[in-house]
Amino acid sequence: MESIGRKPLVERTSIIGVGLMGGSIGMALRSRGVSRYVSGYDSPAALADAISVGAIDPGAGAKTSLREIAEGADVILLAVPIHAMRQVLEELAPHVEPHTIITDIGSIKSSIVKWGEAAIGDAFIAGHPMAGSEKTGVLNARADLFEGAAWAFITPEEPGEYSPLLRARHETLCKIVTAIGARPVLTTAAHHDRAAALVSHLPHLISYAYNETIETDPEVSLAHQLAAGSYRDLTRVAASDPVLWRDVFLENREWLLYALARYRQKAAEIEAAIVAGDPDELLKRIRSAGIL
Amino acid sequence: MESIGRKPLVERTSIIGVGLMGGSIGMALRSRGVSRYVSGYDSPAALADAISVGAIDPGAGAKTSLREIAEGADVILLAVPIHAMRQVLEELAPHVEPHTIITDIGSIKSSIVKWGEAAIGDAFIAGHPMAGSEKTGVLNARADLFEGAAWAFITPEEPGEYSPLLRARHETLCKIVTAIGARPVLTTAAHHDRAAALVSHLPHLISYAYNETIETDPEVSLAHQLAAGSYRDLTRVAASDPVLWRDVFLENREWLLYALARYRQKAAEIEAAIVAGDPDELLKRIRSAGIL
Repeated sequence: MESIGRKPLVERTSIIGVGLMGGSIGMALRSRGVSRYVSGYDSPAALADAISVGAIDPGAGAKTSLREIAEGADVILLAVPIHAMRQVLEELAPHVEPHTIITDIGSIKSSIVKWGEAAIGDAFIAGHPMAGSEKTGVLNARADLFEGAAWAFITPEEPGEYSPLLRARHETLCKIVTAIGARPVLTTAAHHDRAAALVSHLPHLISYAYNETIETDPEVSLAHQLAAGSYRDLTRVAASDPVLWRDVFLENREWLLYALARYRQKAAEIEAAIVAGDPDELLKRIRSAGIL
Repeated sequence: MESIGRKPLVERTSIIGVGLMGGSIGMALRSRGVSRYVSGYDSPAALADAISVGAIDPGAGAKTSLREIAEGADVILLAVPIHAMRQVLEELAPHVEPHTIITDIGSIKSSIVKWGEAAIGDAFIAGHPMAGSEKTGVLNARADLFEGAAWAFITPEEPGEYSPLLRARHETLCKIVTAIGARPVLTTAAHHDRAAALVSHLPHLISYAYNETIETDPEVSLAHQLAAGSYRDLTRVAASDPVLWRDVFLENREWLLYALARYRQKAAEIEAAIVAGDPDELLKRIRSAGIL
């Protein structure tokens, strides 16, 4: 609808890996006319599903090799599992054309920036949309997944490395994600990985640990009967893809362990106030921990 | 609407404490015609608000003493803070009529059962609706707050203590909460307190500790910019009433510390697998912790 009469921002976008995330990006780009053509590279079954939900162009949008998907692309978007990222980057590299911008959507950035720069060079701009779902697969993709979500793009550690060409590439990517409703946030890989450990990776670890606490308790049956909002909040993301989160936990290990240690300390402080049993002290503790 | 042509289940329900919870119960009872009359006892300002949102009957529904609120009541519902519960029970006791059932909505049950039995005797049936909100006050009350929610009623520890009169009182209360959309669950105080520690009290402690971890981190600003669904899930209940949760944490201290210790152990096991850095082992660990 929104595309009528508006010139697309780019001619050709290629999405490698058309699952929940890649598929949602394709649907968002196509429904808003942001890219004239949207192609996908994945298994034949995933490509068929992607066409059926409108995530890639019917017919010519389905690509069966990295050479084909790279051909003529203005932007290539890697939406593959983190553990596959390095290999895909290396295999893609020989086919990348000089004008193409390559980006990704991996949840951790320091490792991926290293792999991307080694394989592709300056044309690789790492990114991370802060949106997702505990569901997987292109059949769960949604064109509005990025509405209001932050979308991080990684900048060089040193301002001196920030060339006009790099700036132009950032601008193109920022325009594209803005057009699908996201809010671009420019930051370095280290800052990203620390902040993402806090607001995304730690909550997933907590949710997994919390869910297992309930499921292994002798009182699990009554617990399920009595479960309400706070239980649902705490367990939702424990249904997330285990392989994805295994990869994230390992690749962002240092910041995640840092965040976990700080969190454990905060929980221990509240626990100590409960054990001490001083009502005024505990109230002060909860007030300082809570949202006022 | 549903009340048209249907005989009310009870004549007179009296709600002591017309805040978010007491007010929501009043709205639910009145909008569904479950009780012919619904009265409230609270501060004059809260009673005026309660009338304005339809939580109690206009005019005669506003009671200004415990004697008045007890007079002719079929059911008295205590929706006061846990730290005020014991005193209200003791002050209410002299005014309770022989046919009246007294119940409460406190989040912990062992202590309240003791206080209620000491002050009121058999006519006190402790209860706990597993619904709530991080918002407070009767102006945030909702008639549909209990739709689909569990509502625990406490049974004696020993089956021998279960008299026909007690059974009849339980039945009345179960019918009332069913009529406002809730799902009655009968259990003992000890089982309730253990299960509630797991599915409600522990999530609140986790949320407070997690929120403080973010707010005190040097990266808090970028963390807020990148925050998405899992962050919102983990922090929502950290906006809950600190006094309420101080009371819950103290009164259910033993089960909460038990639940926290088990949870800490589960988190430590995931942490150990991350530190070990074995991808297969960590994947197995996350799979067993997650929701499949």
